[in-house]
Amino acid sequence: MSRSNTVFIGRKPVLNYVLACMTLFKSGTEEVLVKARGRAISRAVDVVEVLRNRFMPDMKVGDIKIGTEELTSEESNSPTNISTIEIKLHR
Amino acid sequence: MSRSNTVFIGRKPVLNYVLACMTLFKSGTEEVLVKARGRAISRAVDVVEVLRNRFMPDMKVGDIKIGTEELTSEESNSPTNISTIEIKLHR
Repeated sequence: MSRSNTVFIGRKPVLNYVLACMTLFKSGTEEVLVKARGRAISRAVDVVEVLRNRFMPDMKVGDIKIGTEELTSEESNSPTNISTIEIKLHR
Repeated sequence: MSRSNTVFIGRKPVLNYVLACMTLFKSGTEEVLVKARGRAISRAVDVVEVLRNRFMPDMKVGDIKIGTEELTSEESNSPTNISTIEIKLHR
């Protein structure tokens, strides 16, 4: 899937990301990938649930994958692991 | 699945829940269900990733389900929605 169908969840309010997903679907995209890392994982689930319950009741939640990414910061020499989630959405 | 195969993720350190899962598997359980709500969802993913990467490399992550639960608190009359996650683990 091309990167342009992906919504990365950060620290903004949930509805910002809900709107981003809806905009992608409205533009004709059949599949949207919601991605998040670390603490934003909970918000990613919120985004999908709000989208499905309030705005797009017909939307289907496809594969949900979890994983780990290694982060190397400039401050500490040792890399830290961070959990990730990817949620596929189909309209 | 009986409730006794379920590990509910709360606010304790990740390793507490990792240990809880390992104890269930060591006791002969084939399948463990990791459940969390709200902000603990990120920690649930951490638990599974630490378990898989550090302690049980052969463990398989099965179905991951997300959903919404309605919470009614005594303080406010209106119910609030909270996101949930369920992650199935097989050894």
